[in-house]
Amino acid sequence: MQEIAAGPLLSQIDTPADLKKLNKSQLQQVCNELRQFIIDCVSVHGGHFGASLGVVELTVALHYIMNTPDDQLVWDVGHQAYGHKILTGRRKVFHTNRKYGGISGFPKRDESDYDAFGVGHSSTSISAALGMAIASKYKGEHQRQHVAVIGDGAMTAGLPFEALNHAGVSNSNILVILNDNNMSIDPNVGALKEYLTDITTSHTWNKLRDDVWKLLGKLPYGDLQREMASKMEASLKGMVSKSSNLFEALGMRYFGPIDGHNILKLVETLKDLKEIPGPKLLHIKTVKGKGYELAEKDQTLWHAPGTFDKITGKINKKVAVVPEPPKYQDVFGHTIIELAEKNPLIMGITPAMPSGCSLKFMMDKMPDRAIDVGIAEQHAVTLSAGMATQGLKVFCNIYSSFMQRAYDMVIHDVAIQKLPVIFCLDRAGVVGDDGPTHHGAYDIAFMRCVPNMVVSAPMNEAELRNLMYTAQLPETDVPFVIRYPRGQGVMPEWRTPMEKIEIGKGRKIQDGHDIAILTIGHPGNFAVKAAATLAKEGIVPGIFDMRFAKPLDEALLHEVAQNYKRIVTVEDGTIVGGFGSAVLEFMAANNYAPEIKMLGIPDHIVEHGKPEELHRECGYDAEGIVATVREMLNSAILAEALAK
Amino acid sequence: MQEIAAGPLLSQIDTPADLKKLNKSQLQQVCNELRQFIIDCVSVHGGHFGASLGVVELTVALHYIMNTPDDQLVWDVGHQAYGHKILTGRRKVFHTNRKYGGISGFPKRDESDYDAFGVGHSSTSISAALGMAIASKYKGEHQRQHVAVIGDGAMTAGLPFEALNHAGVSNSNILVILNDNNMSIDPNVGALKEYLTDITTSHTWNKLRDDVWKLLGKLPYGDLQREMASKMEASLKGMVSKSSNLFEALGMRYFGPIDGHNILKLVETLKDLKEIPGPKLLHIKTVKGKGYELAEKDQTLWHAPGTFDKITGKINKKVAVVPEPPKYQDVFGHTIIELAEKNPLIMGITPAMPSGCSLKFMMDKMPDRAIDVGIAEQHAVTLSAGMATQGLKVFCNIYSSFMQRAYDMVIHDVAIQKLPVIFCLDRAGVVGDDGPTHHGAYDIAFMRCVPNMVVSAPMNEAELRNLMYTAQLPETDVPFVIRYPRGQGVMPEWRTPMEKIEIGKGRKIQDGHDIAILTIGHPGNFAVKAAATLAKEGIVPGIFDMRFAKPLDEALLHEVAQNYKRIVTVEDGTIVGGFGSAVLEFMAANNYAPEIKMLGIPDHIVEHGKPEELHRECGYDAEGIVATVREMLNSAILAEALAK
Repeated sequence: MQEIAAGPLLSQIDTPADLKKLNKSQLQQVCNELRQFIIDCVSVHGGHFGASLGVVELTVALHYIMNTPDDQLVWDVGHQAYGHKILTGRRKVFHTNRKYGGISGFPKRDESDYDAFGVGHSSTSISAALGMAIASKYKGEHQRQHVAVIGDGAMTAGLPFEALNHAGVSNSNILVILNDNNMSIDPNVGALKEYLTDITTSHTWNKLRDDVWKLLGKLPYGDLQREMASKMEASLKGMVSKSSNLFEALGMRYFGPIDGHNILKLVETLKDLKEIPGPKLLHIKTVKGKGYELAEKDQTLWHAPGTFDKITGKINKKVAVVPEPPKYQDVFGHTIIELAEKNPLIMGITPAMPSGCSLKFMMDKMPDRAIDVGIAEQHAVTLSAGMATQGLKVFCNIYSSFMQRAYDMVIHDVAIQKLPVIFCLDRAGVVGDDGPTHHGAYDIAFMRCVPNMVVSAPMNEAELRNLMYTAQLPETDVPFVIRYPRGQGVMPEWRTPMEKIEIGKGRKIQDGHDIAILTIGHPGNFAVKAAATLAKEGIVPGIFDMRFAKPLDEALLHEVAQNYKRIVTVEDGTIVGGFGSAVLEFMAANNYAPEIKMLGIPDHIVEHGKPEELHRECGYDAEGIVATVREMLNSAILAEALAK
Repeated sequence: MQEIAAGPLLSQIDTPADLKKLNKSQLQQVCNELRQFIIDCVSVHGGHFGASLGVVELTVALHYIMNTPDDQLVWDVGHQAYGHKILTGRRKVFHTNRKYGGISGFPKRDESDYDAFGVGHSSTSISAALGMAIASKYKGEHQRQHVAVIGDGAMTAGLPFEALNHAGVSNSNILVILNDNNMSIDPNVGALKEYLTDITTSHTWNKLRDDVWKLLGKLPYGDLQREMASKMEASLKGMVSKSSNLFEALGMRYFGPIDGHNILKLVETLKDLKEIPGPKLLHIKTVKGKGYELAEKDQTLWHAPGTFDKITGKINKKVAVVPEPPKYQDVFGHTIIELAEKNPLIMGITPAMPSGCSLKFMMDKMPDRAIDVGIAEQHAVTLSAGMATQGLKVFCNIYSSFMQRAYDMVIHDVAIQKLPVIFCLDRAGVVGDDGPTHHGAYDIAFMRCVPNMVVSAPMNEAELRNLMYTAQLPETDVPFVIRYPRGQGVMPEWRTPMEKIEIGKGRKIQDGHDIAILTIGHPGNFAVKAAATLAKEGIVPGIFDMRFAKPLDEALLHEVAQNYKRIVTVEDGTIVGGFGSAVLEFMAANNYAPEIKMLGIPDHIVEHGKPEELHRECGYDAEGIVATVREMLNSAILAEALAK
């Protein structure tokens, strides 16, 4: 990994103090160099791209005007914080961004004092900054600034609304910067987006005031005109300031919209806003991908393009020599269409991840049956529940870690009512470069403790298709979780005929002796690989792809308990409370006492890295399974020897 | 339990079809009789009071105009749906409301076709009704009405905002009725509340239009006046319809505000609105407790007053002959003040439950250190995290089942960053009359699988105080859950001196032989009671109050495992993945193989009833523990006998 060279000004900036030494007239050059540095770095090392390019000017302006880190910046989501990281002491390590052992792709408190709050999931920034602002107010630190930078996509979630409702009456020193670029990862959706476009293009208040004055100008100058002018303006102002603007309605002073790529205008505005106490919102208009033409044109593709040739814009793609297995995401995306073509009751819902989860295929083909609801996981789930009451079979596709946002809705609106909503939990297991905030580590644990839930995970593409097929059958009348990881499966020929799986039925992959390996989901493949290694040593474990963490295949477990004294459980999820724990519960309830070792995600925060690196670190890749099996058998031999 | 007599008109109404037979002129009498019926019934049988009185007219109007149940009504929260239940076939069983085996206090799909969606937690109605509306649109059922009735308190949560953002662009047939009474259980808070007051009192659009016409009237009649009039009105209309109103800004057609106690106006308005397709919002003003003077005056007290003398308004209170143990809630409420008086870093946060959780005591005494953020659990948690970054020790008090709303914030904003926020989970365990939606059943399971979390539960008042004391110490640098049930503890003399508890340290209550009982939290008292019964039979179990589900007291568990072959675990939470499961994980990790039976909330939906009734049903009250211990010992004896 090599360090990236910076331009002449940027290479002098190790902290914001260095930036502050420059003249305002030099800031545009800093922006240019920062933008180039990001292009140079991401093109070689990969990472998120468009978001950071869009806020280069804002980033420079904020660190130029604010007294960071004492003034606190909270970057919502954090994909846009590359410039922030580069200006705050991490330029020289920025090439390690998102790499195993390297710096995080997101702001992170452990990493820098300039990272006021760790982020990753969207929409937390206003609440977090408000907490800081209220703390400062309580401590009498009245000069301190607290800034939340949030995109219009992130604003569609409920949390920022809850925060604004509080901020608007909090009388604390918070500045919300609404970075309006019309995008989430995919184009932003919803009424708020249309509203923002509206106020940006119509300039309601200015326009109306102009109209009034133009009309009044036609009157003969005199008392009547003056009276009308003052009455009208007072009336309009009262109306406009209290209610014509959605943010003013919520008690925030609203400023803007201004051009977020005009560095001098930004500097000037932020300087002014520093002097205005209380809760306020600055609306800036930016272009995601700004300054890299291709990224401006296809903003979804260039959200996180991987590595690319920065001159030609050609994105580097692995060239497959032999047919490769598809991504689980694409299997989902194609299979739901296949099913929906036969079953008119099927609908698809995604909260702002149509490209990520591949529901986009269905949105393009069946636009009235597949809906992107915006970053709104809670609504996605309760909406699906509402649809399910009308007999629809809804595939609600949510990333595992984002499903944490809608946990109450799963329990309260779906499970208690036993509505047959199908939850496809994408990015289950360790997710890779995005790290701790995005690992889908907890879903088996938090889903299986809820009554009425079915919790399943496919070991491969065919199983995913079979589970999806099973979930949408008329007789399936329960909430149904299907969790699968990000990335490729194992079957290049994946368009297998679909068949019904009995709910709660696992499958035996191979008989064995002495020790059984019980797996759920994709890690079953690791067990098969481990068995190949073990076979060379004459060790033949039984292997069971349990498929369901709930309900468990009790018949199969009785068979296992009666035939094996030792069991290894393997899952791509937290060991605490997860699938292995379910197996323990079964054994306790049935008075079996096998020796059981549980492999999975351990009970600490696992950082970022490639999935394979993390599987190894956690010890549940093929090698980890081999090691555990060997260790258990060796202790058994030792124990027997000692017993003799 | 006795049936309540209804007035002459009401007693003829078994379904809305009967209501529809009446003339409009009779509706006021129906309202009067319905109101009286609710007063008669609640005064004798208890239940929620103010909310249903406030929507008597709305309820009658809705069922008079809408074609229920084909037209679908979703009552947000559902406390206000008593009138709806009474008009839809449940008048004669209404005296069983909220009683064990009786009808639910909330709308419930199993109970009636008129209950379009089960509710309990706030703020779900718009999403659910929108799901129904989109389903109807897809199916071509264009005449069908879908109505969400939601209070201004419930509107402060993020979910309705997510739903409105979608509804506003959905082009589906949904009517949101905003029941604006300025209240949650406690008075509503936040910027939205102030905004609603504002538009109600200022009538912005009407007022501005009037102003314009008045001014124009002063001009000489002629072309100029006409030109101005038309231009101004167009300009104003454009502005008003697109942006002057928060709901219009979100794409909803806004109607109102109108008087929600004027039955004829409501009937007329709803009739008109039925003919207007698309998403729309009707703003009605009501008074919580309407028609019962005392309830109108003290709306928080009369939210759910228990039984009372309907003539005098005297609320029936149990008269204690001897000093009684306090409620855990009040121990929390007084203890946080005691701690805050010594530790200036302590803050208190509640999402809309200041009376329920007794943070109100601190809000009254230290208003700048205790904050009600409205129905906004997500914001409450992330706000607390933001405060914690500034060194504050925040007690964030949230009911266990409402904490499900903020699960992602617990993981993403608190646990991953290892911020020492203190979560007091009130109403943990079976909650009683509110039933399934409100049982705090899952928190041990969903909290203990998250890294860095401490999960504790006090067995009594002194333990609660000690845990609170421990959690706020400077050296406690981890997220800290303290869960406790609704209602009374066991110590009349509860103001014990506070002492530090080592995190993860349990305590032995008594040594025993053959069998150990491991408990967490309040059910430890059931174990002590069970032991008294067992002692008479010569059975002496070891009893261990583990105090922490995470981290477990491993030293104590080693002691238990080495001295007892049989273990019963007891918890007031789900057995699946809960405390007992944690004990199993310890035993597996350490190669112990005791026989373990787990008592707690079983893996199905437990309905409503008194906590004692539900403890018995679930089998973890003292009798249940006795039975389990006997059974395990008997099987052991039998097994030994067979072995001989």
